[in-house]
Amino acid sequence: MTAKIEYDSELMLEILDLVKENNQPQLMETLDDIQPYDLRQIYLQLPEKLKTKFLSLVDEVQLVKLIQELEQPDQLKMLNQLSTSKSVAVLNKMDNDDLAYMLDQFPKERVEYYLSRMQDQESMHVQNIMHYPPETAGRLMTNRFVWISKSASVRDTVDKLKTFATIAETINYLYVIDEDKKLVGVVSYRDLILADMNETMEDLISHRVISVPTEMDQEEVAQVIERYDFLAVPVVDDENHLKGIITVDDVIDVVIQEANEDIEKLSASGKDITFETNSLTASYRRLPWLILLLFIGLVSGSIISTFEETLDAVVALAFFMPLIAGMTGNTGTQSLAIVVRGLVSHDLDKKTVARLLLREMLVGIIMGLICGALILVVAYIWQGNIALGAVVGLSLVLTIIIGTLTGTSIPLLLHKFNVDPAVASGPLITTINDILSLFIYFSLARLLIEFMM
Amino acid sequence: MTAKIEYDSELMLEILDLVKENNQPQLMETLDDIQPYDLRQIYLQLPEKLKTKFLSLVDEVQLVKLIQELEQPDQLKMLNQLSTSKSVAVLNKMDNDDLAYMLDQFPKERVEYYLSRMQDQESMHVQNIMHYPPETAGRLMTNRFVWISKSASVRDTVDKLKTFATIAETINYLYVIDEDKKLVGVVSYRDLILADMNETMEDLISHRVISVPTEMDQEEVAQVIERYDFLAVPVVDDENHLKGIITVDDVIDVVIQEANEDIEKLSASGKDITFETNSLTASYRRLPWLILLLFIGLVSGSIISTFEETLDAVVALAFFMPLIAGMTGNTGTQSLAIVVRGLVSHDLDKKTVARLLLREMLVGIIMGLICGALILVVAYIWQGNIALGAVVGLSLVLTIIIGTLTGTSIPLLLHKFNVDPAVASGPLITTINDILSLFIYFSLARLLIEFMM
Repeated sequence: MTAKIEYDSELMLEILDLVKENNQPQLMETLDDIQPYDLRQIYLQLPEKLKTKFLSLVDEVQLVKLIQELEQPDQLKMLNQLSTSKSVAVLNKMDNDDLAYMLDQFPKERVEYYLSRMQDQESMHVQNIMHYPPETAGRLMTNRFVWISKSASVRDTVDKLKTFATIAETINYLYVIDEDKKLVGVVSYRDLILADMNETMEDLISHRVISVPTEMDQEEVAQVIERYDFLAVPVVDDENHLKGIITVDDVIDVVIQEANEDIEKLSASGKDITFETNSLTASYRRLPWLILLLFIGLVSGSIISTFEETLDAVVALAFFMPLIAGMTGNTGTQSLAIVVRGLVSHDLDKKTVARLLLREMLVGIIMGLICGALILVVAYIWQGNIALGAVVGLSLVLTIIIGTLTGTSIPLLLHKFNVDPAVASGPLITTINDILSLFIYFSLARLLIEFMM
Repeated sequence: MTAKIEYDSELMLEILDLVKENNQPQLMETLDDIQPYDLRQIYLQLPEKLKTKFLSLVDEVQLVKLIQELEQPDQLKMLNQLSTSKSVAVLNKMDNDDLAYMLDQFPKERVEYYLSRMQDQESMHVQNIMHYPPETAGRLMTNRFVWISKSASVRDTVDKLKTFATIAETINYLYVIDEDKKLVGVVSYRDLILADMNETMEDLISHRVISVPTEMDQEEVAQVIERYDFLAVPVVDDENHLKGIITVDDVIDVVIQEANEDIEKLSASGKDITFETNSLTASYRRLPWLILLLFIGLVSGSIISTFEETLDAVVALAFFMPLIAGMTGNTGTQSLAIVVRGLVSHDLDKKTVARLLLREMLVGIIMGLICGALILVVAYIWQGNIALGAVVGLSLVLTIIIGTLTGTSIPLLLHKFNVDPAVASGPLITTINDILSLFIYFSLARLLIEFMM
């Protein structure tokens, strides 16, 4: 009765026994109420040699539940362990969106092998979905939903629902179409339950239905569902023909995926590295960023080298280098993070951009003055050199202001030119800030060198 | 028919006219089909002087829709513009979870004022919810759901649904309780639609219902709903009494909130800074991190100062300082980001931790060797000093390995001691890596100083 089923407990032991005993009827009964996610956990915990046997004992309905929960490598492994007829039957029954996502990651000859053996209609549906660009509404949508003609009565509708209830992915909304299959409205379950049997859909529908176009980016689709608290949203083509629906559970996955992508990019940590990724793959994905950052580090190094004389004269300048560069970088990262996450829930207009830039400049001035004053005092006390303190303090004021401005304007510019603002912003902002801050610091130092000596 | 309603278009003009004309019946009809989010956008775009008039024209149902979409400062402003009786009526009709969340942020005397005027039952309900700690299941749950006794027939159930359809927040699942109000199972709409009118709930229920305890952390609740693709999950107390349900739309908000919190902490960007936050508040929230990082910068500075002689002898060592510290910090941040996001979807056991640490060490060795070799060559070519190249290269190998290990082990340790691994990990890892990397770099340099000169 609690959220977590303990898979190593009784249930797991019972299933192990049933598989060993080849007790198919009892196994099917035990698995009947099991949620797909739990079925996956059970399957993954079975000893390797029992997995094939388990797959041969359970029926197609359970196999469909299982495969839709597995990661791609396990999906391929599982299909290979089934007979061709059984694997094709499973594919025929899978949700189109899950199937398209899975096939997308399969080797090309496997995809053709399966598509040619599937039922024509299902094969056609999934190929249709696969024509849409990745991460768009067209890719996320399922065709397992219930639609109804606007002239249908409540009685007809309930009958149709009875027929479709077992195969539809969601039956919370009924989408109403006209003679040309164009979307004209939506009827909710509530309305249906409260209605009289002889009313028609035309009496019940809400015409102000919110739909998304097939080519809409999945992040925007998520925004629509999140804003409107929908359980599903209909997807239409350019001529408003109803093509499919996107359900809220897929949207949660999108939200998690997009947040992970933002974090990956902000931290330059490389794409799709999970706990399971092996060390070679992980290194391969992380190295490009690191090597980029290595050369960025060399740029700052070469700036310092042009000030070698100044540095040679006042070695203590080196003590504050990491601080100046680090503080500018940190300020920039703060602003960047605020902009990247803000873009998730805001539409940008000129007024918003202007207000944001002004705000960040003010923030930079406030924080710069406070941090600058602090470091002036600390540097003076530590090094007993007021001119050095002034150079460090004044540099910090200027570089913190530059940090907030680059951290804000660069992602906004990238966004304006339709580049994902999180892409490369992290390293980009670090470079620019490193170079600008060290340049300002040493220029000020050279200017005031006679006072420091 | 598209996702975006253009608020500055016809609809907005029509509403403006209707408000100006005091045309209540027509306004109500126009607003009838409008989604809550759109209602909010319309309201926010009204000129200030028309807002009060708008509020006086629309009915309580619309007011409830509106207030549940507004941000907290706007909520308070809106309530203050209503008559006491109307504002109390709105509160009585609000969803308990939204109401509790709103009141939580109101001044204390306002909360007491409203609670004492609300209907006893509603006031009691919301006070009950407010007793649960923030960010737990108890806080997210609503009591607007439909439950049914296990002895009820399908006919009784459909009748009850008809009564409750207008007030229930979700009617996708029916939770079945026994005589003691304990949760015994769940019946889905599909089952109900397919059932015979004379069957009872006992014939239909699935007993393997997954519920969450009232004190469960909201992030775990989100995980349950996400894993199981539920539209709602029931919340129970220690004795399995059904206390409420949590719906998927609240969970999407939780997922977004938690992702934002992770990013805020990873980037040390301060809590809850949005595009709307004013510059003083934003500075106030960001400064503590910056000042912390300032003192961290001083620690690295003081380490460098202990190696003043070495630095004085080979000034070129300073050119590579930002590179060494930066690369270690970047490697650490990469590992940290992977761990923090991985923890969102993984349960940790010893095996996972051991495998992860080993993987990251291997990644550190691979990336360290490659970056180290690269910088050795570059440093040699640039400075014509093979010993300097060796010091920089060797330091980089060691510090990158240290970077992956601190970036992995520190968040895992924090997680083990139930501290949110994202908290302070960013700055913490930066400090430790700055200090360790500069120490290693200058120690190696001092050791090999005679070869460099």
